[in-house]
Amino acid sequence: MTNPYENFFNPSSVAIVGATEKPGSLPGIILKNLLDMRFSGKIYPVNPKYKNVFGLECFPSILDIQDEVVLTVIAIPAPLVLDVLKQQALKHIHHSIIISAGFREMGAEGVGMEERIRQLVIENSIHVIGPNCLGVLDNYTNFTTSFLPWERVSKPKKGSLSILSQSGAFAIALLDLAAQEGLGIAKMVNYGNRIDVGESSLLPFLADDMNTKVIAIYMESVDHGREFIEVAKTCSRKKPIVALKVGKGAAGIAAAKSHTGAIAGRYEIYKAAFLKSGIIEANGLEEFIDGVKALSMQNPPLGNRILIVTNGGGFGVIVTDYCSENGLEVPPPSPQLKEKLRSKFSRFYVVNNPVDLTGSACDEDYHIALNTCMIESNEYDAAIIIPLMAPQGMTEKVVDLITNTMKASGKPAVICTVGGAFTTKIKQLFEDRNFPVYPSPERSARAMAMLLKRKILQDGMHLSV
Amino acid sequence: MTNPYENFFNPSSVAIVGATEKPGSLPGIILKNLLDMRFSGKIYPVNPKYKNVFGLECFPSILDIQDEVVLTVIAIPAPLVLDVLKQQALKHIHHSIIISAGFREMGAEGVGMEERIRQLVIENSIHVIGPNCLGVLDNYTNFTTSFLPWERVSKPKKGSLSILSQSGAFAIALLDLAAQEGLGIAKMVNYGNRIDVGESSLLPFLADDMNTKVIAIYMESVDHGREFIEVAKTCSRKKPIVALKVGKGAAGIAAAKSHTGAIAGRYEIYKAAFLKSGIIEANGLEEFIDGVKALSMQNPPLGNRILIVTNGGGFGVIVTDYCSENGLEVPPPSPQLKEKLRSKFSRFYVVNNPVDLTGSACDEDYHIALNTCMIESNEYDAAIIIPLMAPQGMTEKVVDLITNTMKASGKPAVICTVGGAFTTKIKQLFEDRNFPVYPSPERSARAMAMLLKRKILQDGMHLSV
Repeated sequence: MTNPYENFFNPSSVAIVGATEKPGSLPGIILKNLLDMRFSGKIYPVNPKYKNVFGLECFPSILDIQDEVVLTVIAIPAPLVLDVLKQQALKHIHHSIIISAGFREMGAEGVGMEERIRQLVIENSIHVIGPNCLGVLDNYTNFTTSFLPWERVSKPKKGSLSILSQSGAFAIALLDLAAQEGLGIAKMVNYGNRIDVGESSLLPFLADDMNTKVIAIYMESVDHGREFIEVAKTCSRKKPIVALKVGKGAAGIAAAKSHTGAIAGRYEIYKAAFLKSGIIEANGLEEFIDGVKALSMQNPPLGNRILIVTNGGGFGVIVTDYCSENGLEVPPPSPQLKEKLRSKFSRFYVVNNPVDLTGSACDEDYHIALNTCMIESNEYDAAIIIPLMAPQGMTEKVVDLITNTMKASGKPAVICTVGGAFTTKIKQLFEDRNFPVYPSPERSARAMAMLLKRKILQDGMHLSV
Repeated sequence: MTNPYENFFNPSSVAIVGATEKPGSLPGIILKNLLDMRFSGKIYPVNPKYKNVFGLECFPSILDIQDEVVLTVIAIPAPLVLDVLKQQALKHIHHSIIISAGFREMGAEGVGMEERIRQLVIENSIHVIGPNCLGVLDNYTNFTTSFLPWERVSKPKKGSLSILSQSGAFAIALLDLAAQEGLGIAKMVNYGNRIDVGESSLLPFLADDMNTKVIAIYMESVDHGREFIEVAKTCSRKKPIVALKVGKGAAGIAAAKSHTGAIAGRYEIYKAAFLKSGIIEANGLEEFIDGVKALSMQNPPLGNRILIVTNGGGFGVIVTDYCSENGLEVPPPSPQLKEKLRSKFSRFYVVNNPVDLTGSACDEDYHIALNTCMIESNEYDAAIIIPLMAPQGMTEKVVDLITNTMKASGKPAVICTVGGAFTTKIKQLFEDRNFPVYPSPERSARAMAMLLKRKILQDGMHLSV
């Protein structure tokens, strides 16, 4: 039997309540986005004012639709939502995504409306995402309830990352960043005020979702503390989960309360819960996207011995600093390995760790360094590779030389490179081959540390089973 | 009398030793870069093999040039450098930039060659930048000794930031990043092995340099500890200095030694020296470029009370977290100020700090929030403004509304926004108006913290005068 949550992401039939062609109307944009994305399920616009919307037959109310409907999308003013849900209950529609804002986040009156809705959906077994949210995006079924026009938000390609986010703005920013970073997305869910569906019910669903390999969660608060830890523990045994917890200090907690009415709670409790359930915590938006990118593209290393290969000595030094800061070792090569490298390289090159190929480096030198240290020898578990593209000896051939050698080694690598248009092109080529590229030494070291954290958590979870 | 160091950046006449049209030769690329940049001083190619190089008369040796020469640029193999300097001494040329590598960083033999050169230049009063370096770039005189082709490295526009860097790769990366970030550059100096000219002699020069307003230093080690602190203290009274110290832990110190032969020394000593001399320390490449960008574009705030204005609640929460982490306060508005804001805004907006204009925000709302909180009231010293461009109410008009209001307030601001192509355009518009834009909440908060640090250091220096 398929999971009933499938109806949120791949509904065979969906009613869009309030649909209109008027520019700027939320239900109108949602409908237009669905049509633009060529969603293949049946779509029923609902609005008593029209007979047709964007060429589709429009129904005065949900009850006027004769066929079966499995999901409603509600994006009309808050005071009107309850009546729609009552109709939906009569028609036995068991799924609803409520986009509308104006509930708990607006104070006492909103809390009252939200409570009445919660009562109704419990009594009628309606699963609800929202209210006060963007809803979902499924990149495989082409279903979305996003009301943002795709001209403004870049749509990322299909991929293996799924995003759970309490914040809508954050979910959108992550989609935009993913598109920029060449990172493919499976599903996105933004649940806003979260009267029903939240992390604790979505994690088991994503754990079984074929298209999802890595899960990213933005959270201000969590829905059900103890249950969350249990489901996260089960899920993270199968797939890495990276969390960004916001609302940490007193000021941030107050800001979170204003935002989604969430009680952010003591940060230390979250930290302990993440550790217990095998969740990798990110510090800030960039570490969040960097970490999920690394975990989506590379496997965790088996140990923490990192080889650094660079053609810019200063970059090697900073990466070394940040490796140390993040629990990664940068051990020097053994005398035998040094001898081997020396015999293959110009006497100008610095044979150590970092291996510094200097500004005289050419593409093939990267292959030699990686082949000698990562394949012929077993002294390192992973590599941070820094191909700066300014020197003339560097061409785009370096991409295949590096990625093929690393693939042959079976060990993970992350790339650090900084520069203008040519470097941007090289970044793209690396990421097309699933090697994540970072624009600063500190971010490349931290991304490698996230990969290692996954390994440590896996080992810990294995022991505790 | 002009400072003799002017001859490194604006030589009336320069000899390029080893000049050739052969592709890939360093002296050849340096000469070509100078011609491409339309440097207006006299250029004398020196090479016994040619009569002409790139259309300029070529001389067999320095001694064959009849006219006065104020600077030599030497980019020939290390063992040949000493002889050139001997000739230069005979012709009383008192400045030299030695690009050549193969000295101290190569071990004992290199140390010997470097020592003989050091002896000779001391005896003959020759000021030397290098060896093992890229030398200089002056964006106002169009003089450079960079041997990297400008197709590979973006050339930043003219501006007020000057860069001192022990690492060549780092200097280049900073130029590239500056170009990407819309940050203008005055001078860049990369001194590599630093047998003569280093931070301690360049800081007083830059302190008096009209075009330089902010100084960025990348250092693995420092040339003369006590002298450095003294000159840095004097210089930082006039202009902000931001330093990135690398080679911090044991592994990083070892890597720095391999790189430029530098003894990085204990990090704690550097930390204390920075504090004493009014230098702002950056943690990592991104904080380094972010900080100098903020200091180049905005003035320090008079206090630490930060207003946050956002149209994405989640972003407001994270910026709040990172403000707290970095010593910035995010106090709520007074009851009077809240009342004032409420009377002007939709009831959906969250009137607090952060001011959350929600996804319904339009351009004018930013003006209202900033005008009310930063001009009509005096409760805040600076603003972090988050205009996410995904919602339809946001247009490029928001840029002038925000920047004009902030200019009228006389208080500093930094911008945080995340997104694709449209957001990139908006970023450009803000930075054209000297408002720095950052792509993540944590970076915007840290950049504001760097501005505040400058204020605190200024106050501290004032007291200690």
